[in-house]
Amino acid sequence: MAFDPIAEAALLLRRDAQWAALASAGTDVDGIVSYWTDDAVVMPPGQPIVEGKAALRKFVSDSLSIPGFQVHWTSDLVRFSPDGHLAYMRSMNEFTVPGSDGSPQTLRGRAVTIWRREGDGQWRCAVDIWNGAPTSTT
Amino acid sequence: MAFDPIAEAALLLRRDAQWAALASAGTDVDGIVSYWTDDAVVMPPGQPIVEGKAALRKFVSDSLSIPGFQVHWTSDLVRFSPDGHLAYMRSMNEFTVPGSDGSPQTLRGRAVTIWRREGDGQWRCAVDIWNGAPTSTT
Repeated sequence: MAFDPIAEAALLLRRDAQWAALASAGTDVDGIVSYWTDDAVVMPPGQPIVEGKAALRKFVSDSLSIPGFQVHWTSDLVRFSPDGHLAYMRSMNEFTVPGSDGSPQTLRGRAVTIWRREGDGQWRCAVDIWNGAPTSTT
Repeated sequence: MAFDPIAEAALLLRRDAQWAALASAGTDVDGIVSYWTDDAVVMPPGQPIVEGKAALRKFVSDSLSIPGFQVHWTSDLVRFSPDGHLAYMRSMNEFTVPGSDGSPQTLRGRAVTIWRREGDGQWRCAVDIWNGAPTSTT
C-alpha cells in the first residue's frame, strides 16, 4: 500500500491533538505517557533531560502535581521520511505555572517533536524539545 | 545498495563536526549556511524563528558580527528513518556572547537537529532547535 503523506499527516495531527487534550485535562498519567516511545527523550528548557518511560512518567506526574499547572499545545507542518516511518512537526505551546510571587505565569514556547511509526503501526513521539518564544516588549 | 546505519552515522557525525568547526572559525558565512536545506528552520531560544536560506544567512552574519561571539557544538546519538533519508541527532552547544555588563557570557544548551538526504546525496540540516541546560547552582 502506497504511503499517502497528506492522509497520514491528518491522522498524525489528530493523534497529537488527542494527546494535547489529554495533557490539558491533566488527570490520566498513563494515557499521557502512552504517546511516547519507550526510549523517548524530552528536553524541557533549563531542566535536566528526561529519558525513558519511567522518568517520563515521573516528569508528567510531578508536573501535574504543581498547583495551577496547565499545558496546551497545537501542532502543524508535519514532515515525513519518504518511507513514512519517521515524522516531525512543529508546535506552539503554553505552560501555566506559579510565578515567583505565587501567581500564575504563562510561558509560551515553540516545540519540535519527532515521531516514529512503531511495529504495531502506531505513531509515538520519540523526541520532544521546546524553548521560549520571544517575550513581548509591549 | 543496502543502507548501513553505522557507517552512515559516522559519516553524518563527521559532516556535523566539519560544520561545527566552520561555525567556530566564524569567517565563512556561505560555508556555514551551505549545511542547511533551502527550507531549513532554526529556533533559537527567546528569539524569532529563522526560516529559509536568506533569513539564515542574515542570522549567521548578524551573529558573527557580535563582538566576542563564539559558538561550539558536538553531536551524537544519530537515528535514521528505515530508508536512510531522514535523520536526527542530539548536540551540546555553547554560545559566548556579551553579557549585560559587556563581559563575555557563555550559554550552554542542548540541541536537536533533523537532517535530510537531498537529491544530490548530501545530508543537510532541515531543523535546528535548542534550549538552555540547567544552570549550575554551585
